[in-house]
Amino acid sequence: MAGLSQTRIIEIERDILSKNNGFARTNRDRLKQTGTLALNLMSSPGSGKTTLLCRTINDLKAKFPVAVIEGDQQTSNDADRIRATGARAIQVNTGKGCHLEALMIGHALDALPLDNGGLLFIENVGNLVCPAGFDLGEAHKVVVLSVTEGEDKPLKYPDMFAAADLMLLNKSDLLPHLRFDVGACLAAAIKVNPHIQTLVVSAETGEGMAAFYAWIEARASVSRASAVRSDG
Amino acid sequence: MAGLSQTRIIEIERDILSKNNGFARTNRDRLKQTGTLALNLMSSPGSGKTTLLCRTINDLKAKFPVAVIEGDQQTSNDADRIRATGARAIQVNTGKGCHLEALMIGHALDALPLDNGGLLFIENVGNLVCPAGFDLGEAHKVVVLSVTEGEDKPLKYPDMFAAADLMLLNKSDLLPHLRFDVGACLAAAIKVNPHIQTLVVSAETGEGMAAFYAWIEARASVSRASAVRSDG
Repeated sequence: MAGLSQTRIIEIERDILSKNNGFARTNRDRLKQTGTLALNLMSSPGSGKTTLLCRTINDLKAKFPVAVIEGDQQTSNDADRIRATGARAIQVNTGKGCHLEALMIGHALDALPLDNGGLLFIENVGNLVCPAGFDLGEAHKVVVLSVTEGEDKPLKYPDMFAAADLMLLNKSDLLPHLRFDVGACLAAAIKVNPHIQTLVVSAETGEGMAAFYAWIEARASVSRASAVRSDG
Repeated sequence: MAGLSQTRIIEIERDILSKNNGFARTNRDRLKQTGTLALNLMSSPGSGKTTLLCRTINDLKAKFPVAVIEGDQQTSNDADRIRATGARAIQVNTGKGCHLEALMIGHALDALPLDNGGLLFIENVGNLVCPAGFDLGEAHKVVVLSVTEGEDKPLKYPDMFAAADLMLLNKSDLLPHLRFDVGACLAAAIKVNPHIQTLVVSAETGEGMAAFYAWIEARASVSRASAVRSDG
């Protein structure tokens, strides 16, 4: 980085991340009050996160109250799509910003009432690099990769796949039309993060989504059980 | 941005961009010595930039000397793919960095001899946000969007489409398998940037690529003609 010394850049980054981590802790404590399971969804632009979220909400809304925080540089298109499912949604526009930060989530939570024992999905700005470094207070980071993107993405963007607990390999319905080696992609993910779980899904057809719902339900029951209720 | 004042953040950003612009001017002067046309290719991860570059090089290498600078956080996979075409390629790994900067290009040029009147392709880090703000000394920024990504991307990531002179809408071979409105996507791009040119292509099948080559050849002849030759 030109112009500023490397030491000064590192100091600035450390300062930004340290303050962010403080706000993330506050968010996490707050989510614990209602026993909410918060998932931070991250991906490249166009991997199908919003379509995946809409299907997930439609399939789970009878079981869980669902709220969504949508991050984009501009437009409220995604929040509008989410609200059409009946879920509560807040759009955060980051302007020039390339990722969500914990303070933005804190402000969004001020305007987004959460029911007890529900799910909060945070759809991050489409970016396979920068969001990886920012804790938002979520329980898990989930990375969505589509089969149109190439199987070596985990090796090329390792920070994102190292930070995620779950990788959803989306758009499996397109596999017959592509040269894409699913096994090589999963191997690349595991090479970067031996603990990452992987599911192959199609948000378009619903293939494989039941396994994602089971993953969510198991973790939601843990969040519910560990809720700190102010009403004692 | 938490922790640092907004004023201080803006000062830091201005300092970084100002130094970058200085290095970009140096690169531009240097490219002019050899009459090289430099194109800065930007996109999300997985839009097919490298496949598009490989086909372009194979189709144009009889007419132009071609060199490539490849940007990725990690791996030299892309430079290896480029070298298989016979073109010279240098891989720049940005590590934690989410975009190429002009100084990195300067260093790459030190190691990458350029023939007179050739093409230099710079494949930026896959990221639809951050690379838009950094001049590398290129003649044109070219944004590649794939039809699997959704037609509203120009509205959601307007800085990138405002900065680009050409949008390549790639993977047109997949259109029969998708719900994607090409007209709506081109309209979104033009709304953000009335001067952007748009081409629909498939790097996989070659469809539409001849128009891209014609676009390149017209600009390469201008770069050749305006070359400042030290031997002149």
